[in-house]
Amino acid sequence: MYDLLDTINTPASLRQLERKDLYQLANELRAFLLDSVSKTGGHLSSNLGSVELTIALHYVFDTPHDRIVWDVGHQCYGHKVLTGRRQLMSTLRQFGGISGFPRRDESEFDTFGTAHSSTSISAALGMAQGARCKNEKRHAIAVIGDGAITAGLAFEAMNNVGICKDLPILVILNDNDMSISPPVGALSHYLGKLISGQFYSYAKKGAKLALSIATPIRELTLALEKHAKGLVTPATLFEDLGFYYTGPIDGHDLDALIPVLQNLKTSLGPQFLHIVTQKGHGYPLAEADPLLYHGPGKFNPVEGVTPAKEGNKTYTQIFGKWLCDEAEIDSRVVAITPAMCEGSGLVEFARRFPDRYFDVGIAEQHAVTFAAGLATEGLKPVVAIYSTFLQRAYDQLIHDVALQKLPVVFAIDRAGVVGADGATHMGSYDLAFMRCLPNLILMVPSDEDECRQMLHTALRQDGPSAVRYPRGAGPGVTPARTLTMLAIGKGEIRRTTSLLTGRIAILAFGTMLAPALAAADAFDATVVNMRFVKPLDNDLIRKLAHTHDMLVTVEEGCVMGGAGSACLESLAMTGIAIPVLQLGFPDQFIEHGDCAKLLHVCGLDAAGIEISIRRWMDAIKLYEPHRHR
Amino acid sequence: MYDLLDTINTPASLRQLERKDLYQLANELRAFLLDSVSKTGGHLSSNLGSVELTIALHYVFDTPHDRIVWDVGHQCYGHKVLTGRRQLMSTLRQFGGISGFPRRDESEFDTFGTAHSSTSISAALGMAQGARCKNEKRHAIAVIGDGAITAGLAFEAMNNVGICKDLPILVILNDNDMSISPPVGALSHYLGKLISGQFYSYAKKGAKLALSIATPIRELTLALEKHAKGLVTPATLFEDLGFYYTGPIDGHDLDALIPVLQNLKTSLGPQFLHIVTQKGHGYPLAEADPLLYHGPGKFNPVEGVTPAKEGNKTYTQIFGKWLCDEAEIDSRVVAITPAMCEGSGLVEFARRFPDRYFDVGIAEQHAVTFAAGLATEGLKPVVAIYSTFLQRAYDQLIHDVALQKLPVVFAIDRAGVVGADGATHMGSYDLAFMRCLPNLILMVPSDEDECRQMLHTALRQDGPSAVRYPRGAGPGVTPARTLTMLAIGKGEIRRTTSLLTGRIAILAFGTMLAPALAAADAFDATVVNMRFVKPLDNDLIRKLAHTHDMLVTVEEGCVMGGAGSACLESLAMTGIAIPVLQLGFPDQFIEHGDCAKLLHVCGLDAAGIEISIRRWMDAIKLYEPHRHR
Repeated sequence: MYDLLDTINTPASLRQLERKDLYQLANELRAFLLDSVSKTGGHLSSNLGSVELTIALHYVFDTPHDRIVWDVGHQCYGHKVLTGRRQLMSTLRQFGGISGFPRRDESEFDTFGTAHSSTSISAALGMAQGARCKNEKRHAIAVIGDGAITAGLAFEAMNNVGICKDLPILVILNDNDMSISPPVGALSHYLGKLISGQFYSYAKKGAKLALSIATPIRELTLALEKHAKGLVTPATLFEDLGFYYTGPIDGHDLDALIPVLQNLKTSLGPQFLHIVTQKGHGYPLAEADPLLYHGPGKFNPVEGVTPAKEGNKTYTQIFGKWLCDEAEIDSRVVAITPAMCEGSGLVEFARRFPDRYFDVGIAEQHAVTFAAGLATEGLKPVVAIYSTFLQRAYDQLIHDVALQKLPVVFAIDRAGVVGADGATHMGSYDLAFMRCLPNLILMVPSDEDECRQMLHTALRQDGPSAVRYPRGAGPGVTPARTLTMLAIGKGEIRRTTSLLTGRIAILAFGTMLAPALAAADAFDATVVNMRFVKPLDNDLIRKLAHTHDMLVTVEEGCVMGGAGSACLESLAMTGIAIPVLQLGFPDQFIEHGDCAKLLHVCGLDAAGIEISIRRWMDAIKLYEPHRHR
Repeated sequence: MYDLLDTINTPASLRQLERKDLYQLANELRAFLLDSVSKTGGHLSSNLGSVELTIALHYVFDTPHDRIVWDVGHQCYGHKVLTGRRQLMSTLRQFGGISGFPRRDESEFDTFGTAHSSTSISAALGMAQGARCKNEKRHAIAVIGDGAITAGLAFEAMNNVGICKDLPILVILNDNDMSISPPVGALSHYLGKLISGQFYSYAKKGAKLALSIATPIRELTLALEKHAKGLVTPATLFEDLGFYYTGPIDGHDLDALIPVLQNLKTSLGPQFLHIVTQKGHGYPLAEADPLLYHGPGKFNPVEGVTPAKEGNKTYTQIFGKWLCDEAEIDSRVVAITPAMCEGSGLVEFARRFPDRYFDVGIAEQHAVTFAAGLATEGLKPVVAIYSTFLQRAYDQLIHDVALQKLPVVFAIDRAGVVGADGATHMGSYDLAFMRCLPNLILMVPSDEDECRQMLHTALRQDGPSAVRYPRGAGPGVTPARTLTMLAIGKGEIRRTTSLLTGRIAILAFGTMLAPALAAADAFDATVVNMRFVKPLDNDLIRKLAHTHDMLVTVEEGCVMGGAGSACLESLAMTGIAIPVLQLGFPDQFIEHGDCAKLLHVCGLDAAGIEISIRRWMDAIKLYEPHRHR
């Protein structure tokens, strides 16, 4: 079935093939990817769309000596298959298996770990400059999508690359007119114009002949100009930024790709190759709905993706519904997303309130400062953002929102473990990096209804506030239609110990309430739903400390600097010395795997919490004689 | 002396003036600014360069109904003077006085607080969209420099503005071919080309007549085209991004500025006005050396800025010297700065090692990912960055450096109080937002020599590390020429108590060692130089807890989530319950003022530490009966 593909274990063997064999290889690789992803789930559309590019790059360039950086990495599966990981594709994105993204620790061909968008040009420039410093000759190639190239980071990198006239660096814009959702913004319109221009039509129809002449790029350009006098587009924006621009060319046409890449390989200076591909190419169902097939779970390739069974509502859905409810009664409510309409639950809002819906593209920094601007005019902006992507807008959160006390609501999704996307996407640090900021209210819901009430509460603050909730479904509490303001900075006791000695109080933050309650029976422990990381319920903590013998804090986030740490500060402030056990993520990046599995590994399910408390009780008995008081 | 200026207390009265009077006003305003800044210190060159623009904007637009956002704000002094703060200029940047930047809480004319670069277009877009949502008609204007416009955030905003065809939004590029240092990057080259183009020469020489005709902009363009057939530049990059581009025009020529702004006021859609100004305009000394006069201290306007007296070496100088020493012996050492050559102490390095020096422009995100790319090639990148600007690269620090364990050294300057620049520039949060990240080594030097040894140690790690040091001079310890590796994660005891009860140990981080030692005598306290925030010296902390009755942590950074908090975690982990007093910045933004004054206000000088400890000792006596153990 994969006669040719089965013989390719390294790009070196790929480079032994005749060019004419590459078509078969492309067909086999595409079939393999479809089969493989349908069994594991993963990113499909982007990978199907970059089969020919992947083959052409490894065919033309001397990888791994030449460096390829795959931006985001949603298109790296073909690369993984061709670089010795075909057998491992069955473990993709699973606990202990290979990552869905390039990883330096996985293969020497993965020159740079990616996953967050728009890092590739910066990294490739670093590699190119690094090679120059060492007097080594190698190419550095960044492959970036038309969504990713709109982010500020990519622009900063292009602005820097454009002045490096002597570097062998190649930026390949893989333009499929999609990021995850259709891209927005002026640059996207501009790319559309480039593609619809006559040059592209010409190139697509008649260029095979011209392109197959393996001349240096300048001659090639001259030849093309001869054939297509006056049809060449004027200086592009990329040329204004100092690049030599080639394109657009058909990224599924190996007879166009390979000679062009061969030509670019011999050209010095910053090269920009604009290729046009189709997301989901070759699999009609994905071609028809690339968004549905962007990152599906397992599916039958013949039937296609079937609607998921209706389970408990996800926090994302709770948020989306709440936002529409609020928008209905208050015209000042507006929503901002950095290119995550579907993922953040904004589809319905966008449909019903198009004038108050702002998808700003992959532009987290701008999203937040833009929201701050909206807030200065009395609007009620809600920024829907993933925890991991809020890292991109940290300065804007501090400098534009918190410092100015502007009433922006942050609806932080994917806070905590996120599953198959792995270390790059875990929402591990938001509590730590946010709770140190003045003026901010920081809430963590323990169930669906509380999430809704917290969002409601957040929207009614006159300063910034954030509600952080996890990926996936909650414990199954049906949200009340009625919306009620929560008392700011107040937790609630959910279970009270009846013991007189050895009394434990578990201070649970957000999602950890459910496992904490489940673990509490074993110790007849008090359990508190803390609700607020900031302001913290200092009174409650003091009372608990006075009436218990030991406290346990538990949160779905890093222990270092996290919510438990805030509790320690609170206790220290009031001069109370009591043993405290902090549970949460350890001081390491959390890898990919099933969410429940990851929580289990971190000891953050009921069983894990119980075991940790038992161990701790034993340990402090050991410490007892040494303890000062 | 300021006959006309003295009559202008609001822009409304400015708008009552005849246009011919504006020249006198400009002269007076420029003279006032020079006189005022020479007495207080502050940003001079940028403010002298934007006198005419400031007057023209307030003259043409209906401020504060129309919104002006001053990017960075280094050019807002004239605006402050014209909006009722002339008398307060003598308090500029001083404790309790007005800020050197726009501040919403200072004036309704300050529509958006700025200071960090490149936020203005995002904020103005928010205001424009906000007005549209409310059905209000108002203009939103972003004034941005040619340095600031190269940052990714500005590009993200332009990419978003460019598709908002019906919004009354105006971006004014104030192009003086300088950010603080001369700007770098492809966009800067491009702007240079625009300016040197024939259109600008034409406009500068002969446009006064044409520009003074107050026709709508389209007619104006037609008229200009008639006069200058074929001289108009082709579609600019800004037009590619969806803007209507006007310019370049002379930004010191009120007869050009005012009619153009009047025309733009009547035009719909995203407008882009490119003006050319001269930093320091009208003050020959500043014109000749705009960098020296970018942000001088007090000076005599006749004599000009005189060289500062040689005091103790600053940490910045220690860093710059160390970097050159290392670069001399190891060709792999390279330096990266996001447009802060002088401020970060890299002038000498840039001169001596130009091939290994990378000023990437105002592009903190790119700086860090670029450094990560360099590290993958075996280079030894040192990123010189201010604490407050590292906030801009937080995601890159996590995702590209820490996760991949790449050996990038972060030399973090301006960590702690920074003085006159105020809240936006304080380095308050770096310890909190960095110590939660896995794989990172985080060091805090207590004097000049230790800073040098720490940098030396950092450069020899096989993973990421950071040394954070403050603005200004250290305690005056001459750095040893010899460089010695420090033991990772080990603090040192600098003073040992001789008491048997009431024993206090002060755990001092970085700069707080000196005041801690000074305060310690009063209590015969043990004092420890902790050196490492991560990894923390857990053994030492445990030992101290066992041999003392109370611990005090003290750091030049936020208490919440900071280094003291790490000590609490360490104690909790080992089951030790002991009273701990955490000293550091309170949970609020620290405003501008003299550094020593600010530290005093925060209780972080020797006297403050002593008082806090006394109060605390009294307080825990009060708490004693209530305490659990």
